[in-house]
Amino acid sequence: MSQATATQVAAFAAPEPKAPLERTTVPRRAVGPHDVLIDIKYAGICHSDIHQVRDGWREGIYPMVPGHEIAGVVTEVGADVTRFAVGDRVGVGCFVDSCRECEACLQGQEQHCLEATGTYNALDENGDPTYGGYSSHIVVDENYTVRIPDGLSLDVAAPLLCAGITLYSPLKHWQAGPGKKVAIVGLGGLGHMGVKIAAALGAEVTVLSQSLRKKDDGLALGATHYYATSDESTFTELAGRFDLVVSTVSAPLDLGAYLGLLKVGGTLVNVGAPEEPVSLNLFSVIGGNKTLAGSMIGGIAETQEMLDFCAEHGLGSEIELIGADQINEAYARVEASDVRYRFVIDASTI
Amino acid sequence: MSQATATQVAAFAAPEPKAPLERTTVPRRAVGPHDVLIDIKYAGICHSDIHQVRDGWREGIYPMVPGHEIAGVVTEVGADVTRFAVGDRVGVGCFVDSCRECEACLQGQEQHCLEATGTYNALDENGDPTYGGYSSHIVVDENYTVRIPDGLSLDVAAPLLCAGITLYSPLKHWQAGPGKKVAIVGLGGLGHMGVKIAAALGAEVTVLSQSLRKKDDGLALGATHYYATSDESTFTELAGRFDLVVSTVSAPLDLGAYLGLLKVGGTLVNVGAPEEPVSLNLFSVIGGNKTLAGSMIGGIAETQEMLDFCAEHGLGSEIELIGADQINEAYARVEASDVRYRFVIDASTI
Repeated sequence: MSQATATQVAAFAAPEPKAPLERTTVPRRAVGPHDVLIDIKYAGICHSDIHQVRDGWREGIYPMVPGHEIAGVVTEVGADVTRFAVGDRVGVGCFVDSCRECEACLQGQEQHCLEATGTYNALDENGDPTYGGYSSHIVVDENYTVRIPDGLSLDVAAPLLCAGITLYSPLKHWQAGPGKKVAIVGLGGLGHMGVKIAAALGAEVTVLSQSLRKKDDGLALGATHYYATSDESTFTELAGRFDLVVSTVSAPLDLGAYLGLLKVGGTLVNVGAPEEPVSLNLFSVIGGNKTLAGSMIGGIAETQEMLDFCAEHGLGSEIELIGADQINEAYARVEASDVRYRFVIDASTI
Repeated sequence: MSQATATQVAAFAAPEPKAPLERTTVPRRAVGPHDVLIDIKYAGICHSDIHQVRDGWREGIYPMVPGHEIAGVVTEVGADVTRFAVGDRVGVGCFVDSCRECEACLQGQEQHCLEATGTYNALDENGDPTYGGYSSHIVVDENYTVRIPDGLSLDVAAPLLCAGITLYSPLKHWQAGPGKKVAIVGLGGLGHMGVKIAAALGAEVTVLSQSLRKKDDGLALGATHYYATSDESTFTELAGRFDLVVSTVSAPLDLGAYLGLLKVGGTLVNVGAPEEPVSLNLFSVIGGNKTLAGSMIGGIAETQEMLDFCAEHGLGSEIELIGADQINEAYARVEASDVRYRFVIDASTI
């Protein structure tokens, strides 16, 4: 630690790659002039937490405290903080800093800043590791903190900080709304928020899921139609149907089949993706002037906009609230796709 | 022929797949109430003519008269024609009819109508084969005919009907213009029009070509920068540089490398494509919210808009004018990428 006044806080961490998470303590920096100290109330479990703990994506920093879907209450503010006061309900998402000077930062797309600091499994500007939301407290720059409106309960708001913005951003950018037909591929932690948000934006929503197992849920969440992608006739029946298809799955997609579901000028957005390359015949985008796009979470201002939108429309995540001792079990269940639809840790149990 | 009053006109045709083209005659339908009879003055040679003659894309209809870059003069109009008069300078592009009722047609994207009738190698609504522009005359519905403004010579205008609109449409759609950095991949028949149009739209244009062989041409056509893609340092130096990259090449592209040239939120448009699938790691679009799009020619109204734009800015194709007897030789040279930048047939020699 480069700062002498750091304090130790309770956390759940993986001590080494692939190891189960266990109770520990980690340091949090002293509250600087632009920082807020947050008493974490809830932290969502994102599939990417598991990827990173398992070291599937890149070299990890251990001990690793995952968690980038954080909801809590401000308990202390730095001397120069202007946006928040003690008692404010706040959230923290996937990153806690960025360079603030590059084109991405200036456009409010801080998530794409090459120097963005991840909420965990990263090094901050002092070279100290960052630790995430599976913890009792966190210290974050106020500029990377967002406000959770009163209308949203903190537990169902936590997953919005990643799952919510991951879907909201492309749905807004690609103009989901009245008169538009939108398909959401995969009904998991991401997909179920996609259904809720797209429906609230006024689009006609179709769920494309492997099976019809969650059909009742999908319709209750706001979808008008629900099809099984394991049934090949789905792709014939829905050919040319959609303005926008958002894929939340990380299994390798038959891109040609999904591009075939688009109208002329339609867009397939990937927010989930397999680690391996997929095959694409470029004629499947040339025919019909189609677009294959990617989208990664969202910037700070857009995250705030998303929270305000969700509060206005009464949209929270569907969650299973767990104690910290259930984290490892929850990981196994996420890997088995056995969660409806997001595990959220009650941080008072950490 | 389903119409008794058809007339025979001079043409160059491939009598069977892969055969050299030879002088022949083909029938043209009688001028119907909405038709114009066009005295063809010039016809461009598009790479796809060669593909189709060689039967590379699909089952061909033989004898095949290629040619979908047609410029000529109206010599007869049907009784109900309102848009054109005898003596008008006109063009015909890649299609000569469509259903006029589907969503694509109603949006002015007739090129994506599932029932669009190709200018050649297709069957018209009577089930008769269509024959293209390597011919002395053609009969076309006035609604699928465009006007060539006086400011454009017919010879350099002919290639605009395919090469011009193929580049104009995506450059407009993806907002090439002042303040935007645009790269054109490949400096051939398509690419050289991309450079001219993007520069005229006000964008800063970079050519990405296999070698620096045509660098002087590229700069003279309007590019500010010119890089060789055979030099790997190009991809490092230009990383994150462009708002828009338009690929005109049909060789398999390393999509990840070209997506790496885009800014956050940038777009890679493919107007050329290999027949075989290419490999794509979806993280290369998710990181940076990037877009991979396709674009296929353009609709009738947009083709007219393109011709008006080109006339206003003095943009024609760079051509090598040939006699009809040189068509087979020209095909060989196109396949060897030995043309600067479009062969145009003087139809008076057919």
